[in-house]
Amino acid sequence: MAEQISAVEKCLTQFAQEAHELYLNQSVPYLDEPPPPLDFYRDWIGPNKPCIIRNAFNHWPALSRWSPSYLRETVGSKVISVAVTPNGYADAVNGDRFVMPEERRMTFSSLLDVIERKVEQRGVFYVQKQSSNLTEELSQLTEDVESHIPWMSQALGKLPDAVNFWLGEGSAVTSMHKDHYENLYCVISGEKQFILLPPSDRPFIPYELYQPAVYRQKPDGDFEIVDVAASEKVPWIPLDPLNPDLVRYPAYRGARPLNCTVKAGEMLYLPSLWFHHVRQTHGCIAVNFWYDMDFDIKYNYFQLLESLAGLTLMTSEDGQPTS
Amino acid sequence: MAEQISAVEKCLTQFAQEAHELYLNQSVPYLDEPPPPLDFYRDWIGPNKPCIIRNAFNHWPALSRWSPSYLRETVGSKVISVAVTPNGYADAVNGDRFVMPEERRMTFSSLLDVIERKVEQRGVFYVQKQSSNLTEELSQLTEDVESHIPWMSQALGKLPDAVNFWLGEGSAVTSMHKDHYENLYCVISGEKQFILLPPSDRPFIPYELYQPAVYRQKPDGDFEIVDVAASEKVPWIPLDPLNPDLVRYPAYRGARPLNCTVKAGEMLYLPSLWFHHVRQTHGCIAVNFWYDMDFDIKYNYFQLLESLAGLTLMTSEDGQPTS
Repeated sequence: MAEQISAVEKCLTQFAQEAHELYLNQSVPYLDEPPPPLDFYRDWIGPNKPCIIRNAFNHWPALSRWSPSYLRETVGSKVISVAVTPNGYADAVNGDRFVMPEERRMTFSSLLDVIERKVEQRGVFYVQKQSSNLTEELSQLTEDVESHIPWMSQALGKLPDAVNFWLGEGSAVTSMHKDHYENLYCVISGEKQFILLPPSDRPFIPYELYQPAVYRQKPDGDFEIVDVAASEKVPWIPLDPLNPDLVRYPAYRGARPLNCTVKAGEMLYLPSLWFHHVRQTHGCIAVNFWYDMDFDIKYNYFQLLESLAGLTLMTSEDGQPTS
Repeated sequence: MAEQISAVEKCLTQFAQEAHELYLNQSVPYLDEPPPPLDFYRDWIGPNKPCIIRNAFNHWPALSRWSPSYLRETVGSKVISVAVTPNGYADAVNGDRFVMPEERRMTFSSLLDVIERKVEQRGVFYVQKQSSNLTEELSQLTEDVESHIPWMSQALGKLPDAVNFWLGEGSAVTSMHKDHYENLYCVISGEKQFILLPPSDRPFIPYELYQPAVYRQKPDGDFEIVDVAASEKVPWIPLDPLNPDLVRYPAYRGARPLNCTVKAGEMLYLPSLWFHHVRQTHGCIAVNFWYDMDFDIKYNYFQLLESLAGLTLMTSEDGQPTS
């Protein structure tokens, strides 16, 4: 049995290697300007390949305007949702739990006080609400950007589902995961560091089931972890690509992550179903556009990959197939 | 072991079913006119879905001009390659051989004599040379069509690799196979009947290895089968979708073929890697354009499917996995 399963593992390993030989790039390429919609679809969206686009939003007032003082003036009194965690990891595995952040409602000014270190606060603060928070919570800022990316909307034949605003501390980290969106990630100030893995590396990436929980700050300032009551277990990736535990997850040796840094004024095209882990410089501001992906042939194939990965247990704790 | 293999088979079966639920159509849809290149890419080429396009080449003089008398006048003296077989099956399995047609060189007029039944000939005649025979052998006819399909060339960002001319008898059949091309198939007169299977049905389709051979007509008029010397065995599909042998190939029960008829003036978009079997009305004339496919993520996934299909042996003669 183990022999036959290893034949499936061999197919999956060869498949992931061939992805690199056939069409993936060894690093994330740069485009000097946004290409025509058809070219962008054919060269990047269709083949599901990331790229960094320069000169894509030079005309946005946000690039010059979004200083702390301007933001205090414009949206300082607005109440926003901020993810607060003890360690910078919101939505990540901690021990045997999948722990979500404390969602704290606070004014934008109070957040800036934390970011600018004008007040001392326990915990790590990150505006990362992925619910179109730019248009929902900070509508005064929308005139400084665009409501969508015209050439992307034309390429996909639809408008974005969400436009999100990101601002956080240097120690805020987004743990490795994937989204069902075509993502255009625009850095306004500072830098974002991405670790990217193609969908074809799925067989090397461990998923496990975790009890969902949330962080909650106690009156003494310490954080506790509180289980979400009566909630089903959540599949999440326990592996940290910054320090992968290859003894526990030996299959991850087969993965070939791409690292890239997206600087102020640059836009990352992060294709649907790519795994990503994100860090940033302190106070980095970004806006991203989520366009719903098409659930067609590529998604169909990815689902096959998911079911086969579950079958082989390449990514089980001991890396050995069950017998 | 058989148990584990059957788990892979279950994954593959579910994958093929989900393809239909997610994005495939239950029949081949019609478009009333060619869509803009970007829309065609996004809606059909990207998702790898066939469609029949009407009013796509109404302006070709070929539609009204290509009568037998016009063809005799224009290219009657041209020597062309004609596939001749005893049974209509060129490039198909016959017993334990993969048998290719006799490639006979003859004038276009002599071919028309056969098609118009002015002479009696043993065998079935079919102009099916897929080597850009329209431009190579019948260049006088090129002014009656276009050298490429402008909106398709724009969508794909390239010109076709080949433009082929097809003319044959009613009993000429193209056995089930797939091509590495995006195919636009334009029927000028008569009708073509296609049986189409999506790439996701690959696990249900049997392939076996055959000794290559060719038909050769003997002086007495009978055909003999002559092995191609010192040639490697060829993988081909033994199954006839018109009369599938479900005892020998039970996995084919899982396949969901689409049938469509392409009439004069209509164009079939036959996506890359779709399996197809083709019949036609007697004397049907067609021109097709082969655009090289992109060997990117979809091809990568298809190769995985190929390797898994080989592993499970769902499609072996007895339909049982080896043990």
